[in-house]
Amino acid sequence: MVGPAATDAPRLVPVSAEPWNAETDLTRQAGLLTPIAAFYKRNHFPIPRLAFADWRLHISGAVTAPRALTYADLLALPRRSLVVTLECAGNGRSGFAPAAVGEPWTYGAVSTAEWTGTPLREALAAAEVSLAPQARELVFWGADAGYVDAASATLAYARSLPLEVALHPDTLLAYAMNGEPLPAAHGFPLRLIVPGWYGMAAVKWLARIEAVAEPFAGFYQVERYVMTHPERGDPTVTPLNTMGVRALFTSPSAGATLQRGPNLLRGLAWSGASAIASVEVSADDGASWQGAELLGAELRYAWRPWELRWEARDLGPATLRCRARDVLGALQPDAPDWNRLGYANNAVLALPVVIA
Amino acid sequence: MVGPAATDAPRLVPVSAEPWNAETDLTRQAGLLTPIAAFYKRNHFPIPRLAFADWRLHISGAVTAPRALTYADLLALPRRSLVVTLECAGNGRSGFAPAAVGEPWTYGAVSTAEWTGTPLREALAAAEVSLAPQARELVFWGADAGYVDAASATLAYARSLPLEVALHPDTLLAYAMNGEPLPAAHGFPLRLIVPGWYGMAAVKWLARIEAVAEPFAGFYQVERYVMTHPERGDPTVTPLNTMGVRALFTSPSAGATLQRGPNLLRGLAWSGASAIASVEVSADDGASWQGAELLGAELRYAWRPWELRWEARDLGPATLRCRARDVLGALQPDAPDWNRLGYANNAVLALPVVIA
Repeated sequence: MVGPAATDAPRLVPVSAEPWNAETDLTRQAGLLTPIAAFYKRNHFPIPRLAFADWRLHISGAVTAPRALTYADLLALPRRSLVVTLECAGNGRSGFAPAAVGEPWTYGAVSTAEWTGTPLREALAAAEVSLAPQARELVFWGADAGYVDAASATLAYARSLPLEVALHPDTLLAYAMNGEPLPAAHGFPLRLIVPGWYGMAAVKWLARIEAVAEPFAGFYQVERYVMTHPERGDPTVTPLNTMGVRALFTSPSAGATLQRGPNLLRGLAWSGASAIASVEVSADDGASWQGAELLGAELRYAWRPWELRWEARDLGPATLRCRARDVLGALQPDAPDWNRLGYANNAVLALPVVIA
Repeated sequence: MVGPAATDAPRLVPVSAEPWNAETDLTRQAGLLTPIAAFYKRNHFPIPRLAFADWRLHISGAVTAPRALTYADLLALPRRSLVVTLECAGNGRSGFAPAAVGEPWTYGAVSTAEWTGTPLREALAAAEVSLAPQARELVFWGADAGYVDAASATLAYARSLPLEVALHPDTLLAYAMNGEPLPAAHGFPLRLIVPGWYGMAAVKWLARIEAVAEPFAGFYQVERYVMTHPERGDPTVTPLNTMGVRALFTSPSAGATLQRGPNLLRGLAWSGASAIASVEVSADDGASWQGAELLGAELRYAWRPWELRWEARDLGPATLRCRARDVLGALQPDAPDWNRLGYANNAVLALPVVIA
């Protein structure tokens, strides 16, 4: 049996080796799910070496009594599976000009998996953990740590969530991905999944949950994953949360040659805040837009594949654009909102092709 | 990093080596999707060795003109992804007494994947194939073949479908499974997927589609995958089609020891004909039934995970039963409908456990 060459090509495009950062080749995305081996990788530190036998999920801070849950404890709790798209907040950073600080992701720092675990609220209930009245946020500590130049300190990765997000029934302590135990590179034994949020919230190698009375001010909470515009003299610091609405082409690729006549255009669209309402394609620099077909069922937290049969009329170079609107009415901007750290670039993309 | 022993255990339980038949360990099923490596295998013949470069999907018979589609042709057609549960018609055969003819499956000849391909109707339209007026069925020929004792002949695997099923928009020519190109063991390069039907309809290594004017009378159409009751003197031959309604426990395992007090029972339920309406559990030989919670979203063609917090009151041996009802009102029978070839045993199962 000889497989087609296209299916044997690598599906991860390295961005950095240590920490291991790589994007998925979206031109190879079939259907909803990204295979684990092709799922984008975003790490801040080396993958931690854990002694699994000693691993516990510690729950501490502003709670009635601290607790520690074993892996077996978690597996025995009510289970929930959700198909969730994770996108790195820096996805599309290479589209900023001038260049922004950070890993130069193109547009493949996004993937989708089925995550299985137990709702965090179930775990707290089972552990008979009650939050103290003064608790305002939960802080999620990963086991990954290292020296951070920008902070001049050794840090562990940590992020907080407001209680209403942390205790939402869809916020999961996930132990499985696409039906497999969570791989080491994706946070084994336990990863927080916050459906709809950028990937920075999905803390891997989860070691400790701490209830705090004051807003958490960790490096990755207030110095990173925030939108700032000091270049405009604007002192506002806006934390990132849900993924911006976005559509991408998965086929054709940039620079591809299409034939005159009908061509099937394909892509993906998602929004962290709601389901996708429409995807449109323009071949005339946005003067007119043609509606694409949204495929399959609407899954609240998963990207939506789309297709459009587009008629190429004129020979020569052409530029295709696609844009998504979500059901809350959010539409992609025409130009990116430049920010120093290069986050949340969900501007409409221009895809150059040639009609021949 | 040391993984838990349980997650390293084999997830396929061999039934026969050549042809390769194996069931999945459902106690390891997390969420909706079965990983490819754990997906049950049902083969009638050795896995065929195909020269991929020469592979074509041939369309012939009662059509306006025969056609041959390449793999690239199929990839370029409109795409559809569906999460579909496949169950072997012989699943549960070992539950018949006296023993029925055929592979002695317990209950793991069932798995679920996301299948991606193009609707068969799209492929026919794209190939500009029109069926002749006399066409009544489409026959799907696999590339797998061999000598069959019971037929005293060398046969290729082939199955037919009525036109209304073959041309349903959800009947797929699938080229991907869980986002990966179809593996050799699951029919690379192309497999028919008939959502809701027992797995026998999902012809692997699809080589030819033939429109026929008379009902197809191939061995696997009329001698196998039919319900017969000659032992009752009943001459009726009923072809199998959609999967019977069924619920299974995935946890605990048979013979497990449970603690007195609350225990979380888990399982899966599905029906080929419709979605699942309810799952119930009885601990008193069916005298009373307690409703379980159906988890996650209803996906028309996928099994539905369920859970029930069950209170074990009395020490000693106990028997748990679970049963499903589908939205069309079909309920599992208490006893299997014995048939010589051991198909479609969807009777309620008794799970022995011990409360200690």
